[in-house]
Amino acid sequence: MDPEHLPVINNYLDANEPPSSEARLSRMHFHDNQRKVDYVLAYHYRKRGAHLGHGSPGHSLAVISNGETGKERHGGGPGDVELGPLDALEEERREQRDEFEHNLMAAGLELEKDLEMYEIKAGGSIAKKFSAILQTLSSPLQPRVPEHSNNRMKNLSYPFSREKMYLYNIQEKDTFFDNATRSRIVHEILKRTACSRANNTMGINSLIANNIYEAAYPLHDGEYDSPGDDMNDRKLLYQEWARYGVFYKFQPIDLIRKYFGEKIGLYFAWLGLYTSFLIPSSVIGVIVFLYGCATIEEDIPSKEMCDHQNAFTMCPLCDKSCDYWNLSSACGTARASHLFDNPATVFFSIFMALWATMFLENWKRLQMRLGYFWDLTGIEEEEEHSRPEYETKVREKLLKESGKSAVQKLEANSPEDDEDDEDKLTWKDRFPGYLMNFASILFMIALTFSIVFGVIVYRITTAAALSLNKATRSNVRVTVTATAVIINLVVILILDEIYGAVAKWLTKIEVPKTEQTFEERLILKAFLLKFVNAYSPIFYVAFFKGRFVGRPGSYVYVFDGYRMEECAPGGCLMELCIQLSIIMLGKQLIQNNIFEIGVPKLKKLFRKLKDETEPGESDPDHSKRPEQWDLDHSLEPYTGLTPEYMEMIIQFGFVTLFVASFPLAPVFALLNNVIEVRLDAKKFVTELRRPDAVRTKDIGIWFDILSGIGKFSVIINAFVIAVTSDFIPRLVYQYSYSHNGTLHGFVNHTLSFFNVSQLKEGTQPENSQFDQEVQFCRFKDYREPPWAPNPYEFSKQYWSVLSARLAFVIIFQNLVMFLSVLVDWMIPDIPTDISDQIKKEKSLLVDFFLKEEHEKVKLADEPTQRSQGGGDRSRRSRAASSAPSGRSQPGSIASSGSQHTNV
Amino acid sequence: MDPEHLPVINNYLDANEPPSSEARLSRMHFHDNQRKVDYVLAYHYRKRGAHLGHGSPGHSLAVISNGETGKERHGGGPGDVELGPLDALEEERREQRDEFEHNLMAAGLELEKDLEMYEIKAGGSIAKKFSAILQTLSSPLQPRVPEHSNNRMKNLSYPFSREKMYLYNIQEKDTFFDNATRSRIVHEILKRTACSRANNTMGINSLIANNIYEAAYPLHDGEYDSPGDDMNDRKLLYQEWARYGVFYKFQPIDLIRKYFGEKIGLYFAWLGLYTSFLIPSSVIGVIVFLYGCATIEEDIPSKEMCDHQNAFTMCPLCDKSCDYWNLSSACGTARASHLFDNPATVFFSIFMALWATMFLENWKRLQMRLGYFWDLTGIEEEEEHSRPEYETKVREKLLKESGKSAVQKLEANSPEDDEDDEDKLTWKDRFPGYLMNFASILFMIALTFSIVFGVIVYRITTAAALSLNKATRSNVRVTVTATAVIINLVVILILDEIYGAVAKWLTKIEVPKTEQTFEERLILKAFLLKFVNAYSPIFYVAFFKGRFVGRPGSYVYVFDGYRMEECAPGGCLMELCIQLSIIMLGKQLIQNNIFEIGVPKLKKLFRKLKDETEPGESDPDHSKRPEQWDLDHSLEPYTGLTPEYMEMIIQFGFVTLFVASFPLAPVFALLNNVIEVRLDAKKFVTELRRPDAVRTKDIGIWFDILSGIGKFSVIINAFVIAVTSDFIPRLVYQYSYSHNGTLHGFVNHTLSFFNVSQLKEGTQPENSQFDQEVQFCRFKDYREPPWAPNPYEFSKQYWSVLSARLAFVIIFQNLVMFLSVLVDWMIPDIPTDISDQIKKEKSLLVDFFLKEEHEKVKLADEPTQRSQGGGDRSRRSRAASSAPSGRSQPGSIASSGSQHTNV
Repeated sequence: MDPEHLPVINNYLDANEPPSSEARLSRMHFHDNQRKVDYVLAYHYRKRGAHLGHGSPGHSLAVISNGETGKERHGGGPGDVELGPLDALEEERREQRDEFEHNLMAAGLELEKDLEMYEIKAGGSIAKKFSAILQTLSSPLQPRVPEHSNNRMKNLSYPFSREKMYLYNIQEKDTFFDNATRSRIVHEILKRTACSRANNTMGINSLIANNIYEAAYPLHDGEYDSPGDDMNDRKLLYQEWARYGVFYKFQPIDLIRKYFGEKIGLYFAWLGLYTSFLIPSSVIGVIVFLYGCATIEEDIPSKEMCDHQNAFTMCPLCDKSCDYWNLSSACGTARASHLFDNPATVFFSIFMALWATMFLENWKRLQMRLGYFWDLTGIEEEEEHSRPEYETKVREKLLKESGKSAVQKLEANSPEDDEDDEDKLTWKDRFPGYLMNFASILFMIALTFSIVFGVIVYRITTAAALSLNKATRSNVRVTVTATAVIINLVVILILDEIYGAVAKWLTKIEVPKTEQTFEERLILKAFLLKFVNAYSPIFYVAFFKGRFVGRPGSYVYVFDGYRMEECAPGGCLMELCIQLSIIMLGKQLIQNNIFEIGVPKLKKLFRKLKDETEPGESDPDHSKRPEQWDLDHSLEPYTGLTPEYMEMIIQFGFVTLFVASFPLAPVFALLNNVIEVRLDAKKFVTELRRPDAVRTKDIGIWFDILSGIGKFSVIINAFVIAVTSDFIPRLVYQYSYSHNGTLHGFVNHTLSFFNVSQLKEGTQPENSQFDQEVQFCRFKDYREPPWAPNPYEFSKQYWSVLSARLAFVIIFQNLVMFLSVLVDWMIPDIPTDISDQIKKEKSLLVDFFLKEEHEKVKLADEPTQRSQGGGDRSRRSRAASSAPSGRSQPGSIASSGSQHTNV
Repeated sequence: MDPEHLPVINNYLDANEPPSSEARLSRMHFHDNQRKVDYVLAYHYRKRGAHLGHGSPGHSLAVISNGETGKERHGGGPGDVELGPLDALEEERREQRDEFEHNLMAAGLELEKDLEMYEIKAGGSIAKKFSAILQTLSSPLQPRVPEHSNNRMKNLSYPFSREKMYLYNIQEKDTFFDNATRSRIVHEILKRTACSRANNTMGINSLIANNIYEAAYPLHDGEYDSPGDDMNDRKLLYQEWARYGVFYKFQPIDLIRKYFGEKIGLYFAWLGLYTSFLIPSSVIGVIVFLYGCATIEEDIPSKEMCDHQNAFTMCPLCDKSCDYWNLSSACGTARASHLFDNPATVFFSIFMALWATMFLENWKRLQMRLGYFWDLTGIEEEEEHSRPEYETKVREKLLKESGKSAVQKLEANSPEDDEDDEDKLTWKDRFPGYLMNFASILFMIALTFSIVFGVIVYRITTAAALSLNKATRSNVRVTVTATAVIINLVVILILDEIYGAVAKWLTKIEVPKTEQTFEERLILKAFLLKFVNAYSPIFYVAFFKGRFVGRPGSYVYVFDGYRMEECAPGGCLMELCIQLSIIMLGKQLIQNNIFEIGVPKLKKLFRKLKDETEPGESDPDHSKRPEQWDLDHSLEPYTGLTPEYMEMIIQFGFVTLFVASFPLAPVFALLNNVIEVRLDAKKFVTELRRPDAVRTKDIGIWFDILSGIGKFSVIINAFVIAVTSDFIPRLVYQYSYSHNGTLHGFVNHTLSFFNVSQLKEGTQPENSQFDQEVQFCRFKDYREPPWAPNPYEFSKQYWSVLSARLAFVIIFQNLVMFLSVLVDWMIPDIPTDISDQIKKEKSLLVDFFLKEEHEKVKLADEPTQRSQGGGDRSRRSRAASSAPSGRSQPGSIASSGSQHTNV
């Protein structure tokens, strides 16, 4: 925070301005209808029958009971009613509130106590300076920017400095800072005001954590669905953004940022960019899919498989009850596999890896662009206050260590001295927390893996059971796969919620010092757990399923007599594709519909029902139009963007990680996101209390996670293509073994021979429909034939194909990484026009201040002229006298600025 | 550049201060012995006999001839002598100089014309403000910091602002800004002063480029080898840093930065960190080498090779003239190979990959730390002026396009408007330059490759020729390898110089707009060319040599009858190691000794000789002690850090890229760098003119190149271990083929059989010493034996070993990359103590300014008291009145700052 920035709204307290003529606006103003409400504090008040009888002198409160969840109500004027009865805890809390509020007023805020609640208002000259110093503000020189300003026009801006106030184009002092900025100033003061009674804690967050206040939130701008023509930003947002009806429109990012602050603005900007980037990848994904459909008839291997003349007698799929089978019966899956297992997917996955890089690069650019237009370029990380939980922990530690004396020392010190070495939590103090974290995360991951294994066991056993029954045998595979995937999906959904709560709990145990570290660690933990949860069944199918089967004659068994599961004859890719699509679609549909739409609706309904069953004395009050702070209080509190980001990041994983096996993923993601944008928008506009406007330059750790997924996707896709798909074996066959350079004979080449007489005793098919003439059955593997000197060993083909697969992984990975670096390097992080504009703006400012400096020097060199002016308060008179000339100056910067930046 | 920074050295022109008592210092002062010389402009003056007779009125110059290379000399006072004779070009230049100097004086600089040269001096109040606005200055609050301040103590600093001047702890106005800062201010003014006569060019650089001035440089602080006790920074640097005698000492980085500026300071800081990071890697490298020496006796394969009882009769190494040979004759190389080809090198190369990451991370941290202590955190990129060449090109374009009118338009406009769209070089204008660049670079790379190929041909033919002669046959390999490597080295050294010049020429053709882009592109091009030049023979030996030999019976021939060269029986690793060590050592020794020590000495000698043979009228002047600007003018001009960085970066490549094959590389690099640091230091202190102090936050593109090499080294090392060394085949043999889990029999396993009768006609050995009983000869490859159904095809072993090699590459690459990311992630880029201090400093500043603000408000609220004070010039009186209280305030910040930051 730069101490030079001193915003001052001069003459703010002079009540010469006419009261706002519109009566409606009074709902957002103090009772004098002039001063705007910037922030609301709410707290619970519990009514008791007993009269404890000790009132702090000079305090008098009107207490009106409205049940246990009622709110304390304060009369506007002093000295009405006697102190009501309070129990000890409540009394303690009331005193803490009183002190805190007193400190707030000393800091210059203005408070008004509503019958229901308090409002806090920025005002008073010292307070304004104080708050202004606390804030890094970049105020636009012209506040009356059209709401949907085009991005090509920008006002020259400079951090607000009280000393240079006459240079700014301040048209109306009341609107010079917008509502978000005002509430940010108030929030900053609330965060920094100490309350010595409450263990010397700093700020409103600690007081809320200690239940002294219930909530603190800024006000919404008005109602979003008011019938009249009067427009406020919230209503505008609702109409232009937060409805499904406008899904095709661009988002009004600048307005979102103005209303909700930069952090939420960046989220929606990111979501918008991501969604628009999904469009080209969807188109190409569909083309790749259609290419698969179009070439299905020309695919020689699947034709060969479907050809009944090539009677490949396959070894039985299970012991005893399964018969030999003809490969042509798997014709369907083979043909379906071709849809996703064709050369086009290789190029598509290269494309998607570069797409991810391009997306991240473009996000960096958009972020820079927004940062420039939102004047975020200068903000730096601030020192954050410790979290209340951290402070409590430190206090406990001190208590334990050195008894009462240390606490006294702590209380004697100012809170800033908390940061001495002995008052910190050392690694030793944190060790139990870290250990718990480590152990829990390991346990959770083990739990996920064991559930995946459980599903595998379910599949194996059910398949075995079903194949015993002749009636169900025909569609064993479909039944088992479908039910298993659905079980997986349900487990993922349930664990997702559990893991979210566990991650929060674990992060609390860790007691991070600041809110920022708390958020980062929470995100990392939650991401790790949810990622493992969502992807482990998919990883299993992609890389492990069917690889530990053994071979006929020496199968691998789990438990007793259950053979490890194999992939379908068309390869595991088809199954991977099914798994991916069901989990991705199911997760999105169910999470969107149930968790994001259904649950909030239910909660609302529940609250409504509860309100109706509690008819209190407040009924008469309710008959009058509720104040805005009442309306806002009834909304859900804002709890951060983490769930929104998390959902999108997991989706980004589906889109990039396994795109080689499921080219339609971008399409589904696109469809989901078009809805998601409006769903989130609606939630923010209509269902949540207004969040504090948080200034931030970037999306923080999410970017690192995204770029990590992008890099991980390269190696995953390399392995999917090399190992899971049949791409490499076909290539090898075509160029090394094929007689005529085509794929004719490929199927035969991939099947090894097995001498039926070598089947272990008791595993032969019991009732074979095949004649006894079957001497050799075939299985999919590269092994030496029974007549070779070393039968059933891996053949030379196996090793050469494996070499080719691995070589492909190396080439693919390094090629794609190189291309990504190239793309990264070729796209500059800062758009050229923005960097040019920043430089131009800087030199304009230099010129402007130089001119101002020269004029000052001129004035100083003419002392005679100045001595005629008033002697005292020369500073003020000077500022005033320079105001007229100053009035022309800002005009000139503003215009010259826009001249140069109207590119 | 932040326009709020207004440094002012008050009352600078009041000559009340006593003249500097030390007479010595006058050599760095104006003739009044008071005003310090900050900058020197030099130009050539050519004496002519003809009197052209038109003198610009009001100008009078004293011209004293001192030969063709003499300098124009100006008398201090006006109106002494008539205008001397000048030819047309010289006249034009003189006028341009006059105008430029006039503009400089208008900008407030003070000039004094020496008999020999000019000095330019910062002075005058407007100029100071002007220059101060142009500079982002972070002035220490206490200027009298002990020279070798420890890094744990730091003064609270804030960009200089004239309005808050009374807050700074200004003890002496003359020394408040140090020499480097002063000359930076002057340089900035020189860069920004226009000269309308010289085609409206901006700044001194264009004038130098147009030969109007010869040079412009700031002054050194004095002589470095003066015998007296008087100390200046240069002498201190010489004694404590720029001598080989102090090679063991840490570098006085803060002093280097103070004297040479941040850019050069960062270079030496980087070089120092790199050198100190080489220490652990050298130690481990030596340990790895010693491990190789210690285990040489236990190495079973080399023992088997040396065992004469295992008579492996090898196929002849050349046609006809070569005989069969016994493998035991290659015992020596096999044993030597083991020194570098043992499992320890695998771990060493993993270590070195992580070492590179650690080094880069630590550099980032050191950079942040230095940036904090040097107050660089706030500086941002500035808009740079176009290069003179760019401006010329644009002017030419306009001339061609729209004739004279456009040029008039251009001249009418201010230079800032140059940046309109039509006045830019478009892609179309640049296309020929880019094409030329692309073609030339391709040609250069092709040239390098063909030279490498030429050396290969030399090796093949010479080997063939030598083996014809019986006398030379015994040491063919040694002779050929040694001469070839020396040829390679010489070619590399020559091409290195050529490529440096070519890269410069190509970048000039490209006409980049700013100095910064020029430098970046030059570096990239030079790096590309020099990298390819230095490494292509090494890459050939590592990955290509001996891989295209064919097999006995079907060798690959180049030209007629020359077989492709094979590696020595111990593997190519030994040869790679020799190649690496000779090129690395030779390059360093020769470049250091000849190019960095020898050539400058020769140049100096040459200049001295030339001076002696030219006895001019200046001789009497020479008898007096030369002024500092004369001494400095005789030094070499500073031409940038690129060659220094380039040498180190190429060395970094040797240390990281092939470290798997040459673990001693870090040791050699360390030895070289210990000398290199002092060599460079000596050059800067004693042999170069003082460079402009350039402020910069980081080492720029070099960091990207370093991190690129670091990443590249991972895959290169993976391939060296997997493909070049015998590590993987041994592992495969040990775990898959060996009967008892040892390496016994490994040598036999790697040798294939060849049926001698299948040798092509005319290629059999002519005079075989072996009896005719030889039926099979052996060769190193995995191929089917002659008695197999498909003789001489690659065997199953070949494919399984290949699979293992490739799998190793994948595992190694991804493991090391993952570990690198982990290291990168675990080491925060900003050291915690620094980020804490930055935050604390910020909050201290906030508190401090808040207090100041409060006091101001208090003063404003007591108008009666203030009205008694003087009426006019209230601003000044106020500043003065607050000075006493201000004097205590900065003390208090400074002390409270140090209290908190003295960690």
